[in-house]
Amino acid sequence: MLQDRSRATRDDGPEHSPVAQAQGASGTGPVISRALQILDAFSAQSPHLSLSELARKAQLPVSTVHRMLGELLTWGALERDDQGRYRIGLRLWELGSLAPRGQGLRERALPYLEDLSLVTRENVQLAVREGTEAVFIERIGGSCAVPTLTRVGGRLAITATGAGLALLAHAPAAVQNDVLERPIIRNTPYTITDANRLRGVLAQVRARGYAVSDRQLSLDTLSVAAPVRSPQGEVVAAVSLVVHCSSATPAALADLVLSSARAINRALHMPVS
Amino acid sequence: MLQDRSRATRDDGPEHSPVAQAQGASGTGPVISRALQILDAFSAQSPHLSLSELARKAQLPVSTVHRMLGELLTWGALERDDQGRYRIGLRLWELGSLAPRGQGLRERALPYLEDLSLVTRENVQLAVREGTEAVFIERIGGSCAVPTLTRVGGRLAITATGAGLALLAHAPAAVQNDVLERPIIRNTPYTITDANRLRGVLAQVRARGYAVSDRQLSLDTLSVAAPVRSPQGEVVAAVSLVVHCSSATPAALADLVLSSARAINRALHMPVS
Repeated sequence: MLQDRSRATRDDGPEHSPVAQAQGASGTGPVISRALQILDAFSAQSPHLSLSELARKAQLPVSTVHRMLGELLTWGALERDDQGRYRIGLRLWELGSLAPRGQGLRERALPYLEDLSLVTRENVQLAVREGTEAVFIERIGGSCAVPTLTRVGGRLAITATGAGLALLAHAPAAVQNDVLERPIIRNTPYTITDANRLRGVLAQVRARGYAVSDRQLSLDTLSVAAPVRSPQGEVVAAVSLVVHCSSATPAALADLVLSSARAINRALHMPVS
Repeated sequence: MLQDRSRATRDDGPEHSPVAQAQGASGTGPVISRALQILDAFSAQSPHLSLSELARKAQLPVSTVHRMLGELLTWGALERDDQGRYRIGLRLWELGSLAPRGQGLRERALPYLEDLSLVTRENVQLAVREGTEAVFIERIGGSCAVPTLTRVGGRLAITATGAGLALLAHAPAAVQNDVLERPIIRNTPYTITDANRLRGVLAQVRARGYAVSDRQLSLDTLSVAAPVRSPQGEVVAAVSLVVHCSSATPAALADLVLSSARAINRALHMPVS
């Protein structure tokens, strides 16, 4: 998932990446870019990598990767597992936990997500928008609920999930155009891939106050999501319920996610303890 | 918290840090070190920083910080808030969520931590050891429970918390010696600061199978912790209950944390879904 975003940089090669060019003659660009390329090689599918796998995925010479690994290990960005492979280190996890849009929001929202989970026994998720994608920052799986594709820190299509549609409906017009001008992947026969139909869906989300994805991501799931707003009124996240498509009507779930979203809005107004 | 670990590097200045020296003539050392120094400037106490605050905290010239910020922003390691200050970006949070010792362990353990929280209505915590410190990777606050000092991604004294003692008791001898040879901060009159007494406490933790901190971190809290083991038998984490010091006996809490730790051990044996 993380890899997708950096593919352009890697395909161009570090010296010719837009970032490296933007740095011009400063000389710092390629070095930091290469370090970030190494970190980008890790993904949920490949959390442990050997030196040669890292070099291949980062498209860098083994000698370059080896030289940089020392420093990344010393600082704790990477660790070695008991088989000598590299993995993302706890230090990077700690630093990431300082991201206000990740851990900060998650901690404020968690009690309300747990309430929603207890009441419904269904999958509860919290997502934020990063550019043109939805990133899931929390999921609580229901004990008997339908399996979902979501992973904390993972990304799913912003046009095919309830949470994604709730976020996109309130995104700046430039972001909406960016998403709708690209080809949209068809996950199921129910996935809406037509830009004009999606614009209609987004208008409906704004009018109703909640978003519905009915089998648009996978054939057995239905998700209903409501936007979470900052004290300034900006949509900063979406809370969603993901259920088996036959188990409930969207309108009944909407009341639950809307009240949960309102409770989280209220929590975001409270001073940080 | 994060800052403490990097203080030595910062005080030495980037060019003369051990890391930079170890990199020798490669020339990559100082650049990556400086980028990491910039990230290290952020802490739970200072999650939003201006350019000049960043330069001051990282002990780098404003021009250097400004040049590197461009690249860190482009990649998403940092973001700007609505007042133009810098903060840790969602991208770094996503990358950190790939750390097996952070998010991976947390996700496996969370259902059991929630069970323990529901049954006790007390504070439940999960910690791992990073060098000579305990890092809390999850906390679930009890609804009527005693307030705690813990923060997810935060560090607390390894000798003054139940979770810390459970981790230290099973740490390599070199780590124990390293901790016990340094002066130990007295948090309360009950904090054990004598190295020999602490060695006795660690032996007792190993013999009993659980650790107790009775008002050693703050005057109103008692914590009881049990080690969580990997399928290879290595202690990889500790689960703890933190209660008001007058509300329960350690032995009664020990049974609860021990059975929760055993359930998490079992979950770590299951294949990743």
